[in-house]
Amino acid sequence: MIEAQSFQIIDGKHIADVIKSEIAAEVALRRKSGKKIPHLAAILVGHDGGSETYVAHKVKSCEQVGFKSTLIRFEEEVTEEELLGKVAALNQDPDIDGFIVQLPLPAHISEQKIIEAIDYRKDVDGFHPVNVGRSSIGLPAFVSATPAGILELLRRYNIQTSGKHCVVIGRSNIVGKPVASLMMQKSYPGDATVTVCHSRTHNLSEIIRQGDIVIAALGRPGFVKADMIKPGAVVIDVGTTRVPCSETKSGYRLKGDVAFDEVAPKCSYITPVPGGVGPMTIVSLLKNTLLAVQNK
Amino acid sequence: MIEAQSFQIIDGKHIADVIKSEIAAEVALRRKSGKKIPHLAAILVGHDGGSETYVAHKVKSCEQVGFKSTLIRFEEEVTEEELLGKVAALNQDPDIDGFIVQLPLPAHISEQKIIEAIDYRKDVDGFHPVNVGRSSIGLPAFVSATPAGILELLRRYNIQTSGKHCVVIGRSNIVGKPVASLMMQKSYPGDATVTVCHSRTHNLSEIIRQGDIVIAALGRPGFVKADMIKPGAVVIDVGTTRVPCSETKSGYRLKGDVAFDEVAPKCSYITPVPGGVGPMTIVSLLKNTLLAVQNK
Repeated sequence: MIEAQSFQIIDGKHIADVIKSEIAAEVALRRKSGKKIPHLAAILVGHDGGSETYVAHKVKSCEQVGFKSTLIRFEEEVTEEELLGKVAALNQDPDIDGFIVQLPLPAHISEQKIIEAIDYRKDVDGFHPVNVGRSSIGLPAFVSATPAGILELLRRYNIQTSGKHCVVIGRSNIVGKPVASLMMQKSYPGDATVTVCHSRTHNLSEIIRQGDIVIAALGRPGFVKADMIKPGAVVIDVGTTRVPCSETKSGYRLKGDVAFDEVAPKCSYITPVPGGVGPMTIVSLLKNTLLAVQNK
Repeated sequence: MIEAQSFQIIDGKHIADVIKSEIAAEVALRRKSGKKIPHLAAILVGHDGGSETYVAHKVKSCEQVGFKSTLIRFEEEVTEEELLGKVAALNQDPDIDGFIVQLPLPAHISEQKIIEAIDYRKDVDGFHPVNVGRSSIGLPAFVSATPAGILELLRRYNIQTSGKHCVVIGRSNIVGKPVASLMMQKSYPGDATVTVCHSRTHNLSEIIRQGDIVIAALGRPGFVKADMIKPGAVVIDVGTTRVPCSETKSGYRLKGDVAFDEVAPKCSYITPVPGGVGPMTIVSLLKNTLLAVQNK
């Protein structure tokens, strides 16, 4: 029998608020000294509920920290050419420091083509191959929001990573692969032994149980159970699956990849869902935009 | 006591020769149908013995398969600006399909700046961030020579990789990181659970012993011993350290990262040094150059 130990909840909401204050202070300083105010633009195609919510959050967060923000809307029927035209215009616009194209896009538009058309110096989502590649070889780059947010949480909670075994569950291009890449770099947070496992992995439980740090990003609610976790592990839950719920106004609630109630007592640190990694993603985007204007 | 089992040597020299014949046949076909003959250029700065040897091998291999090749030499004192000028000229030259800048460069020149100046469509060494990034997210790209050579060996020997645990020792930008990235992609060879370990890893032996496939790329001769290897594992030795040797004309011989004599009897497959991964690297470069001309 394994004894429950005292665990600490990693409060992403709180850390995100702290960082927003830091960014706001930096913007106020720029304003005072006559420097350019960071300006983030977002392109939103169609009216998908999730996308609407995310973009609205991003715009609101820009306001909170004193950024300029611009929301550019297109209807679902927009052609790839029109969208590429807008991307080219934003690339050229000296007032726009960074911009994002909210994904997913309608099926008739190639997301990859759009992403690669963005000037990598304005690619604050960090999806352009130049940013993925530079980050992978350890050079300064815009790191995408979720991986950057995870590392920031580890940093703010002073969690040791050097030589630790970090097990990443999931190999998506926007979370699993980039966070694995960051965790193996010679830096802090980083310098970890990194294992990436996924749907094809044999003995998945056995491998996850080796993790001193477990980053769950597979998108299967409640997948990670207590018996998969080594006592004292740090557990980062990236899952945000919407599950139907009669108790909320929206009719759904977010559920993580980790069975929180049974896993938490075995951990040293754990992120909740919601309120863990989620709030950090927008903050990463704001940090990248600030970096973009500082890089000029 | 572990019984010795019969193991198979992965004959990189032979496979490289087979692939060279395939490329030569393809070039002959192109010639016959009036298509452009692939043209590889190499820039060599200074007179480092190792670099001279590598570049000479590359030029000779081009001749063997019927490519055009151009060797461009600069003295050690060349300025970064002059070198960038030459890179720009090669980027523009329609007859050059691909080119490489032999590394290392003298200390007064930024290797990264030179690499990033190369048009990624001619970057047949696969070091440009666009190629690193595209490869990482699973898109077509020029993959750098050693990782591509390793995957080709696995493919030619029909070695199963899906769901296997692949342990990569070493996290260099030219071998460890890119081969790890390839082995986790949804493809063959790939689809493996991948662990990257390195100098900071705790319990290194224990982790290596989990590997169904072990890729040793740390550059420490004879580091991997028999007790670190799971019976039946596939062992790929990327090490090529020059050690002094009185029995060879050159005064040195190449030594791998694996203690071959004791490790081989435990393996199902193993690459020797020399004659394993080494011969495959030039072949990968030729394949990339052929791809470059086909992409046009």
